[in-house]
Amino acid sequence: MSRLLVRSFALSLDGFGAGPNQDLQNPLGVNGPDLMQWFFPLRAWRHMQGLPGGETGVDNEMAERGFGGLGAWILGRNMFGPVRGPWPDDSWKGWWGEEPPYHVPVFVLTHHPRPSFRMKGGTEFHFVTDGIHAALDRARAAAGDRDIRLGGGVSTIRQYLQARLIDELHLAVRPVLLGAGEALFHGLDARALGYECVEHVAGERATHVFLRRRVDVGPTSA
Amino acid sequence: MSRLLVRSFALSLDGFGAGPNQDLQNPLGVNGPDLMQWFFPLRAWRHMQGLPGGETGVDNEMAERGFGGLGAWILGRNMFGPVRGPWPDDSWKGWWGEEPPYHVPVFVLTHHPRPSFRMKGGTEFHFVTDGIHAALDRARAAAGDRDIRLGGGVSTIRQYLQARLIDELHLAVRPVLLGAGEALFHGLDARALGYECVEHVAGERATHVFLRRRVDVGPTSA
Repeated sequence: MSRLLVRSFALSLDGFGAGPNQDLQNPLGVNGPDLMQWFFPLRAWRHMQGLPGGETGVDNEMAERGFGGLGAWILGRNMFGPVRGPWPDDSWKGWWGEEPPYHVPVFVLTHHPRPSFRMKGGTEFHFVTDGIHAALDRARAAAGDRDIRLGGGVSTIRQYLQARLIDELHLAVRPVLLGAGEALFHGLDARALGYECVEHVAGERATHVFLRRRVDVGPTSA
Repeated sequence: MSRLLVRSFALSLDGFGAGPNQDLQNPLGVNGPDLMQWFFPLRAWRHMQGLPGGETGVDNEMAERGFGGLGAWILGRNMFGPVRGPWPDDSWKGWWGEEPPYHVPVFVLTHHPRPSFRMKGGTEFHFVTDGIHAALDRARAAAGDRDIRLGGGVSTIRQYLQARLIDELHLAVRPVLLGAGEALFHGLDARALGYECVEHVAGERATHVFLRRRVDVGPTSA
């Protein structure tokens, strides 16, 4: 069965996975780009943008690991865009332009229904209004024996963690202080939920920590 | 003027500097020893215990940095011992036996007065009942031009951070999940208080992050 994976998710030293006050101007929240400074110089990022070059060190190797063997993605609505509440129309098609970097079906969690649509390069956006388990079921059906990547944001990852549905998380811990924002672990006992660190690797601009759900701990029932 | 330094303070991936439910059996809190597994194998730790040998890699180098040039220490009461409330008598003399590893004056923050005393090897314990600024003043007077090390615990460091009195913090970020315990940064905006990361070094069992108060930011007035 395909695994549900979090990959290359950046975390500040003080525990934030996004800055405060996300909006169209600050899709990662205020100071959120500090989280991503490890990622932007990499070949992996430039390749996503269709650009040549980029750094090829440890950080890049860790980032590239996150793109192999994926058959579907799941995103929280705020990862898909800044629009809140009912969709006013179908004009917002994501942050990524005509050809998003997914190339597989992407399931977007939302409370507000919207028709699926297809973009250049094979990305399909589907909108799931009946919760995280339904989104995962649909992603599994789409992914076949490939893996599913859970893109975020913080509250979406927290919901899947709480339900013990994530098989593995790769966090890129950044030596920066955000001071405020969305805390990944606050009030959530990941140890009691069955997660443990299985690997840590020092990169150029982040420490890469891999957490895995212990094999003796299953997901909670739906 | 001597600097106020936090050194080798271990932090879990999920932001805890101590486990929950500290007591005589669990001086670091439940699962707290997971925080310290980077430290126990080191020459620096064995030297403190009067033992030969120990590892001499990056973690050890970072730990040994923390012992140079110190003229005084400040400890929260819970770092000194498990006794709470008024001192029943003078029998508790710290966790460290007859010859504590400090060898300089140590100022212990407490609400309950107690006479100073001296141990073998030059360590003197002084009990300060009039707050963190008074303890720092006394430590400065004792330290001369050497530095002052703030040993912890979490709530003591948080108080000094909030008052912007700490010049530099070296955190040893451990790739472990504690799940619960005392959170170092929760609800405390270290970025707004003027702290920033100036260095990060990958060790064998921890990532060493150095935070410094920006030079344009002074301590709050007493």
